[in-house]
Amino acid sequence: MRTQVVIVGAGPAGLLLSHLLGLEGIDSVLVERQTAEHVQARIRAGMLEAGTVELLRSVGLGARLDVEGMEHRGIHLQWPGERHHLDFVDLVGRSVTIYGQTEITKDLMVAREKAGHPAYYSASDVALHDVTGSPSVTFVDADGAAQRVDADVVVGCDGFHGPSRLSIPSSQVWERAYPFAWLGVLADVAPSADELIYAWHPDGFAMHSMRSPRVSRFYLQVAPDEDIAEWSDDRIWTALATRLAFSGWTLETGTITEKSVLPMRSFVTTPMRHGNLYLAGDAAHIVPPTGAKGLNLAVADVALLARALTASFRGDDTLADAYSETALQRVWRCTHFSWWMTSMLHRHGDDFDAQLQLAQLRRTVSSVSAATELADNYSGIPL
Amino acid sequence: MRTQVVIVGAGPAGLLLSHLLGLEGIDSVLVERQTAEHVQARIRAGMLEAGTVELLRSVGLGARLDVEGMEHRGIHLQWPGERHHLDFVDLVGRSVTIYGQTEITKDLMVAREKAGHPAYYSASDVALHDVTGSPSVTFVDADGAAQRVDADVVVGCDGFHGPSRLSIPSSQVWERAYPFAWLGVLADVAPSADELIYAWHPDGFAMHSMRSPRVSRFYLQVAPDEDIAEWSDDRIWTALATRLAFSGWTLETGTITEKSVLPMRSFVTTPMRHGNLYLAGDAAHIVPPTGAKGLNLAVADVALLARALTASFRGDDTLADAYSETALQRVWRCTHFSWWMTSMLHRHGDDFDAQLQLAQLRRTVSSVSAATELADNYSGIPL
Repeated sequence: MRTQVVIVGAGPAGLLLSHLLGLEGIDSVLVERQTAEHVQARIRAGMLEAGTVELLRSVGLGARLDVEGMEHRGIHLQWPGERHHLDFVDLVGRSVTIYGQTEITKDLMVAREKAGHPAYYSASDVALHDVTGSPSVTFVDADGAAQRVDADVVVGCDGFHGPSRLSIPSSQVWERAYPFAWLGVLADVAPSADELIYAWHPDGFAMHSMRSPRVSRFYLQVAPDEDIAEWSDDRIWTALATRLAFSGWTLETGTITEKSVLPMRSFVTTPMRHGNLYLAGDAAHIVPPTGAKGLNLAVADVALLARALTASFRGDDTLADAYSETALQRVWRCTHFSWWMTSMLHRHGDDFDAQLQLAQLRRTVSSVSAATELADNYSGIPL
Repeated sequence: MRTQVVIVGAGPAGLLLSHLLGLEGIDSVLVERQTAEHVQARIRAGMLEAGTVELLRSVGLGARLDVEGMEHRGIHLQWPGERHHLDFVDLVGRSVTIYGQTEITKDLMVAREKAGHPAYYSASDVALHDVTGSPSVTFVDADGAAQRVDADVVVGCDGFHGPSRLSIPSSQVWERAYPFAWLGVLADVAPSADELIYAWHPDGFAMHSMRSPRVSRFYLQVAPDEDIAEWSDDRIWTALATRLAFSGWTLETGTITEKSVLPMRSFVTTPMRHGNLYLAGDAAHIVPPTGAKGLNLAVADVALLARALTASFRGDDTLADAYSETALQRVWRCTHFSWWMTSMLHRHGDDFDAQLQLAQLRRTVSSVSAATELADNYSGIPL
């Protein structure tokens, strides 16, 4: 078959791109290695930047988000004996919204069905061909039949493990493995705080987040090779209560429904375009989850790319030619911010590092310019 | 002999303290291991924060500073292909002043002579006694005679190598050795730029500074164990021209009159008070020279301590009791800032670190809040 844009990967980045292109009358086909159920169930980030929310609303994806999303004015930063609220709305005029990636994926899947954009799930042996000439993507579909999609453009939204990024020869790669991981926990309990709590603690970082008024999300800094079998529910609640402790505040506990260890690393590959192949989202860059930039950065790539491809199909290649460079400006900004948040909040290094972290935390909550720097980056630099 | 305050160390910190106490009618005696000539000739920092300048003026030490000091509105930050000016006056309403530590020391020595505050130079075997009871300092004077000064208070302004900090038992120490050093160069040539240039470069950090309209000061990042014999004048000028290169700008060269390798480290010892012994300046903390906080931090300690001791001699110990904690707030702020400037500008780590540095530099020159953070810290948080 033939289409204008073949999109490899039907996670939120691929689905959103298909949606945005569809609104401009550009045809696309999605090719996804996993089942739709698997993609939908993947638990990832849950914080949307102001610009992400605005974009989703403006393209008809805001209905459920506006009802179920929880708008937060800022975050709490804490360390032993201190808890401070940073109000992003006061500082930079923008809020953030808690709405799980699972929910966005669900909304995008509904929109895709409605628009009738074709998607192949459970595609195996996905391969990209002739991306600098007349591109095509071949794969074996769910029924075992060999398929081939010819297109003007291929977009790789297939993450770090997909084939797209490997189709760019002589790419340059930057990587950082952090010497810690997150133990992520979902629990059936109402959040114990109105907004997220980022806690520095001598035992390691802890975070109190939420997915809905009835579901809380927690993270604990653990070793990169942590054995999750060592973390009983009791041990998790004790560690959370210790690291999140604050005078007069109580951590409510509930049934833990999911726990897993999330590795933390940074990864950037350049360029993000090679001939008629474009990369977006995790295929081109991974950030550690502190600050929740991953999904938002994918949305920013896709928003830029949809504009670029639309213009290109209409005969103006200016944006498309600048895509890689333009996208990478934001990628490096968010990579730096994610590294900064991660470095400030996790125990690593020696006692001198700990004092630097505390000095940075004290500064962030006491200086308007320091607080504004965090708020501006966290709530998202406008798209 | 007996005095109210015996000050160990007659560098700028000790001399300024003696001066400030003298203005309040409090007697002090200075005890210094080196000759006056040696102290006066030590080449150190040359950048004064706005608050330091204001303090020096307010206590009658501004006459020559006002004539010879070079007021700068900000600094230049550069990396290959880019040079940006940060205007501190526009950002935070404060300027900085270039005036060598040698010149401040000279002014303070003149003031000491005029006020007739006693000072023992070339004192050997300096020892502190009974600092939690009735303190005294013993030493052998320049003529070989044993001396003893009894006092109510001992202040250690004797740097990292002096005996004062070792007189605080069970102190806690934080240290960081940076994996690079500065090759510092003095040259008889008019500065090639109106204000300081801090340059990130793949070969390593470089800085263009100045001491007067006819004397330039340069720094080059080198290895911590760099052999200065390897650095001919030609090699120095070539490295400076490469690292400071900017389109349309020329580095003027001249006769190099001094070159030396400066180690870079951070050091903090707490508490800064033990009984009747107080520490100020390098005796309690050392910062790497990037951002020029060392002398300014010593001045801040001394300004605080002079107020605290004055109040204490008048019967109110509140400030003296809070001295260590109050001083350390600024110490950790400046330690963090110096580490941040150092980490941002010097090549270290891997290529990922280099990208983080460039991302931070681009942010600093393009975001008002990021620029304000640098300006506020660099020009000096008000005393």
